[in-house]
Amino acid sequence: MSRLEETIARIAPLDEKAMADARRRQDDLTKPQGSLGRLEELSARVAGIQRNPRPRIVNKAIITMAGDHGVACDGVSAFPADVTPQMVYNFLRGGAGINVLARHVGARVVVVDMGVAVDLEPHPGLVIRKVAKGTANISRGPAMSREQAIQAIEAGIEVIEAEISKGLDIVGTGDMGIGNTTPSSAIVASVTGEQVSMVTGRGTGLDDVQMKNKIKLIDKALAVNRPDPHDGLDVLAKVGGFEIGGLAGVVLGAAANRIPVVVDGFISGAAALVAFLLCPTAREYMIAAHRSVEIGHQAAMRKMGIVPLMDLNMRLGEGTGAALGISIVEASVKILNEMATFSDAGVSEAQGKEAHSIGGARV
Amino acid sequence: MSRLEETIARIAPLDEKAMADARRRQDDLTKPQGSLGRLEELSARVAGIQRNPRPRIVNKAIITMAGDHGVACDGVSAFPADVTPQMVYNFLRGGAGINVLARHVGARVVVVDMGVAVDLEPHPGLVIRKVAKGTANISRGPAMSREQAIQAIEAGIEVIEAEISKGLDIVGTGDMGIGNTTPSSAIVASVTGEQVSMVTGRGTGLDDVQMKNKIKLIDKALAVNRPDPHDGLDVLAKVGGFEIGGLAGVVLGAAANRIPVVVDGFISGAAALVAFLLCPTAREYMIAAHRSVEIGHQAAMRKMGIVPLMDLNMRLGEGTGAALGISIVEASVKILNEMATFSDAGVSEAQGKEAHSIGGARV
Repeated sequence: MSRLEETIARIAPLDEKAMADARRRQDDLTKPQGSLGRLEELSARVAGIQRNPRPRIVNKAIITMAGDHGVACDGVSAFPADVTPQMVYNFLRGGAGINVLARHVGARVVVVDMGVAVDLEPHPGLVIRKVAKGTANISRGPAMSREQAIQAIEAGIEVIEAEISKGLDIVGTGDMGIGNTTPSSAIVASVTGEQVSMVTGRGTGLDDVQMKNKIKLIDKALAVNRPDPHDGLDVLAKVGGFEIGGLAGVVLGAAANRIPVVVDGFISGAAALVAFLLCPTAREYMIAAHRSVEIGHQAAMRKMGIVPLMDLNMRLGEGTGAALGISIVEASVKILNEMATFSDAGVSEAQGKEAHSIGGARV
Repeated sequence: MSRLEETIARIAPLDEKAMADARRRQDDLTKPQGSLGRLEELSARVAGIQRNPRPRIVNKAIITMAGDHGVACDGVSAFPADVTPQMVYNFLRGGAGINVLARHVGARVVVVDMGVAVDLEPHPGLVIRKVAKGTANISRGPAMSREQAIQAIEAGIEVIEAEISKGLDIVGTGDMGIGNTTPSSAIVASVTGEQVSMVTGRGTGLDDVQMKNKIKLIDKALAVNRPDPHDGLDVLAKVGGFEIGGLAGVVLGAAANRIPVVVDGFISGAAALVAFLLCPTAREYMIAAHRSVEIGHQAAMRKMGIVPLMDLNMRLGEGTGAALGISIVEASVKILNEMATFSDAGVSEAQGKEAHSIGGARV
């Protein structure tokens, strides 16, 4: 069995008993039942993921993967391709958006070169898992071979497993790659069957003419490559990217090791969709942080039946949304663990629900 | 001039220059312009509030105000009224939802008795500003006198000014008061002109029969009291509550002292609406944390033209949504202050926007 097959085979449904126990405690906390809304759902889900009715979130990481895209030379981005390595160095120096937000929520950032087009200088904070120096141009043929697709996903699995060995209770995904909304739209169009124009956005800021060109190129990529929408590896190989494959591996590796994975925005969502095709159960481990401005994100989430936590009109990627999402999930777990119950606190319960007051409890 | 008049007189528009400077820096940070969406708007707003293009958020507080309501004896809540003092003690012991979430975001909780129906035991963490032992029943007459309404608001101003003297960069509002969705719906119906049934929700969990009764009582409160929808003091006195008045004072005091105020859910929203009636400019200082499940909240926000940051299906109050909102605002300010600019980081800018790359910048 390959590493990928072995990982998928380990992905099991959530632990229903831990979830039921968590919900029972939740209902006994000093608040009207259900009044913390999605926070209550989230902590129960984390309980099911961790197989623990009192789950813990201490060690947090964002895994931000970078890769380049052959199609970038066709004018699908407002930024030149050399911004990919420049931003990797920015991540390593701590000056990017993801660094700021990861610090804010107490998560470490793991920066991975999955396929940047140039050789990057070694750095203690940089994990090099380069599959190749950028993908081929998807508007003319496949992005990569099937073997490379497997290699990218398995690299993602190995990266998260290395982080798990250092201590990890929750992970967020992040991406960097000039041009990578183009393969992401191609993946989402292919898998959901939506028209390309309905799942393609302006990326880092295209004008109308550039948008038309982008849509035309994606249509061409799908016509030339004909990815099989039921085969995650085929979709990834034909119209994907190395960082997208790596992130699909992070999702699968998280699910196999019972770690909640907070999925960032559009590119991470496309990666999650690849993981979902390879193993639908992996969806249970995913928490979508926010609704991206990129319209294709909604189609990807709909396909998986996932409702994002926030809508802050963001479209940066890097894991910035995931970082904020991790903080919300952590808050939900703290609620479950740290709030007093009605009997602890001497608070009367709702009338008609075995109302009782433990009188006399005071500060 | 009364303390209230003097406070309102000090509320000035935001500092446009600080906002413009903040936006200019925002556009120079290493990300596509506008790609952090609402985070970018938020930090610019805080810059305008603090009159500082590089605003700071270090000292954070949630002010949670408690009060009782005469109308609670008419079955408008699923919980008995003695839960108000019980929950105050729970706050003081640190076991409530607001304590957990405030700790999560590093905010202190200031607990204020604005009008709990019983005498509370003294506690170093409890601020006692009791206007009276609960309001009168609004379905039969005014909740309080106009003098008491002023007293409640001025107490709120004094509470926040005491906190400012200890160090405060951002404040969140929170409420506790069995039955207090009823006066909040009455306030919102009165001020917005919406039908009572369109702004009334199930509070802590009413069944259909109880809901009908609640709507009937609010209709009666409006018919009996006829609050003047243009006079915030009249609305508060006729159909409000002491904690609602206190929170209106917190909002006005925050605005007068140029402190951003993160407004929690429905009850806090009703208080913000009273503050808005008294001084429309105060709106510029308000950030709505989340959309409450209570439907009247949306009408209040619409009236003020404010779009909440999150929708997490919450309806607990206490300041729980405000705490999460504070963390988002703090994140936005850190982005503005801590991210590298294009020239700092040696990253190429978007093509067509004075594109230039500072080559050679490395880790």
